[in-house]
Amino acid sequence: MINSHRYCVIMCGGIGSRFWPYSRTARPKQFIDFLGTGRTLLQMSYDRILPIVDKKNIIVVTNADYASLVKEQLPDIDDSNIMLEPARRNTAPCIAWAAWHIAALDPQASMVVMPSDHLITREREFEASIRKGFEFVEANDALLTLGIQPSRPETGYGYIQIGNPTEEESINRVKTFTEKPDLSLAEVFIQSGEFFWNSGLFLWSAEAIKRELRKHAPDISAVFDRGQEVFGTENEDDFIHENFPGCMSISIDFAVMEKANNVYVETVDFGWTDLGTWSSLYDNSPRNKSGNVAQNCSLLSYDSSGNIFAVKEDKLVVVDGLKDYIVADAGDVLLICRKGEEQRIKQMVNDARMNFGEKYL
Amino acid sequence: MINSHRYCVIMCGGIGSRFWPYSRTARPKQFIDFLGTGRTLLQMSYDRILPIVDKKNIIVVTNADYASLVKEQLPDIDDSNIMLEPARRNTAPCIAWAAWHIAALDPQASMVVMPSDHLITREREFEASIRKGFEFVEANDALLTLGIQPSRPETGYGYIQIGNPTEEESINRVKTFTEKPDLSLAEVFIQSGEFFWNSGLFLWSAEAIKRELRKHAPDISAVFDRGQEVFGTENEDDFIHENFPGCMSISIDFAVMEKANNVYVETVDFGWTDLGTWSSLYDNSPRNKSGNVAQNCSLLSYDSSGNIFAVKEDKLVVVDGLKDYIVADAGDVLLICRKGEEQRIKQMVNDARMNFGEKYL
Repeated sequence: MINSHRYCVIMCGGIGSRFWPYSRTARPKQFIDFLGTGRTLLQMSYDRILPIVDKKNIIVVTNADYASLVKEQLPDIDDSNIMLEPARRNTAPCIAWAAWHIAALDPQASMVVMPSDHLITREREFEASIRKGFEFVEANDALLTLGIQPSRPETGYGYIQIGNPTEEESINRVKTFTEKPDLSLAEVFIQSGEFFWNSGLFLWSAEAIKRELRKHAPDISAVFDRGQEVFGTENEDDFIHENFPGCMSISIDFAVMEKANNVYVETVDFGWTDLGTWSSLYDNSPRNKSGNVAQNCSLLSYDSSGNIFAVKEDKLVVVDGLKDYIVADAGDVLLICRKGEEQRIKQMVNDARMNFGEKYL
Repeated sequence: MINSHRYCVIMCGGIGSRFWPYSRTARPKQFIDFLGTGRTLLQMSYDRILPIVDKKNIIVVTNADYASLVKEQLPDIDDSNIMLEPARRNTAPCIAWAAWHIAALDPQASMVVMPSDHLITREREFEASIRKGFEFVEANDALLTLGIQPSRPETGYGYIQIGNPTEEESINRVKTFTEKPDLSLAEVFIQSGEFFWNSGLFLWSAEAIKRELRKHAPDISAVFDRGQEVFGTENEDDFIHENFPGCMSISIDFAVMEKANNVYVETVDFGWTDLGTWSSLYDNSPRNKSGNVAQNCSLLSYDSSGNIFAVKEDKLVVVDGLKDYIVADAGDVLLICRKGEEQRIKQMVNDARMNFGEKYL
């Protein structure tokens, strides 16, 4: 029996530039079958929440440019459950809109907010964790974030330090949010046992997040309060089109989570990765016996290991003497980059724009 | 005024496997616009001989599989000037057929035989050299080969050692033909001033090469002598279809040039390269300021030099931290191979066949 007051917001408006050229402006990584499983990351996110939240309560928030991709990939979703942002404004305005929208439909609503481009491998543990989170935010005035049990001193993630325990096992007050640490600090974090990876998964009641937005991000809440009467009506789209672009661009972490007093963390361990980088994709993909990862391609390798080959069309890749590289072939762009230098991809995207305009983005 | 007894035989039946995957069984390198000039290597070979030999005397010998490619690329050539080999039998049977064919059309014919996949940059010197060669073989009972003034101790070519001079400047008796030397021997060759690169370009009268084939390769000449009356008639194709495959597969160098007593070499210097390897293509192509060669592609490079990028379709290649590699993208095959390891390409082709059949060949 699914609780009809529970909602899910899947955010899928990002452009995934760290995975360029595989992830493109026209089809970011959440719309790609990244692991070659037959389902895109967005579809996997949808599949994962379906046992927990009634289909009619699953809402996808995306950029207007991706409307047709969402409809194509999630044909079961009703058009009224696809919220199209007219501009990119980071997560706080996105979540605010979803909260005002859902609260208008159901003032008793609770909601889970989740990115669409993460990978979760242990779905039953995910399901149990989300149910527990819903129960907690339904019983308490709480903003709940999910902290992932870390398995290594990862420097690519933000961390959450747990504070005082609650009556619920594995749910604590949040002591601090931290930015990405350097390696030595990350090692200290791991040893302490107090730090968990910041997953970007949140649960709260719609009213609770509205209240905290009013407290900590009044510029944003004011926009949506101004349109109070339009949410859930046929006038909502016009209102959003006119007012959403005026919101400041800011993450929900900066706008609310790091400021509010009722922030809790549920520590979980359900095989999570944000797949935020090629290296994390390499780390989370099955390697062949020579230690290479081949996505969507046949591979003949000679004196080569530690590479990830990601190819859009069926292709034979033959490689000699290559160690620890990213090779991403996206049809009209071929990227060959040392795994340790992938932070350069951002610069490469800029250089491609400078030299060739939008053609290859 | 073009001498109507002069003929040209362009050989273009090879499969160019050293340039796999850029060169494919279905379209070997001579049929590719390898340098991005707008003309394929075959078309450049044809253009080069056109001022010297009457168009109706230019004959292309190729494998039957490539008939349509030749017709498409050389639309000016009459069908009767395209000789289609029903099987691959190396250069001696190919040249023998051409000689018997041409001698039947014109018993006084002289002919230049040339590969279709070499690069020659100084066309006026080429023209003068070929004219001089024709005059020599028309005045003397001689098999004339062209020896290229070497510019470096190349270990990838065979060499010709010059012997006694003739009355003609820059034409000598051949003392020896040598196989590909190692580097120390190649250096000795260069210092001696007596050694020239074996170009695979030959001139002779049709009767002279027929006579020498009869002397030194009687198994082959016997096949063509058996069909003496068919050459130049409508029965020639049937005869070839039936008898050509029975010829032994052997090069003209082994079969005749290394054995005959009337072999001469004209030493020339017209900017020749056989483009036999990716490294030679790299050496003969303009490099950008970072020291990379980009064929048919836009390149953004970071900490990368000494690479050759050859791409079939217009594509952006972005590369970080790559030194001295071959990157060849042929649509359905991507090859990344150290330049120093390109002798492995043969093995790679075999492995591709073992694993995937003919699909990628």
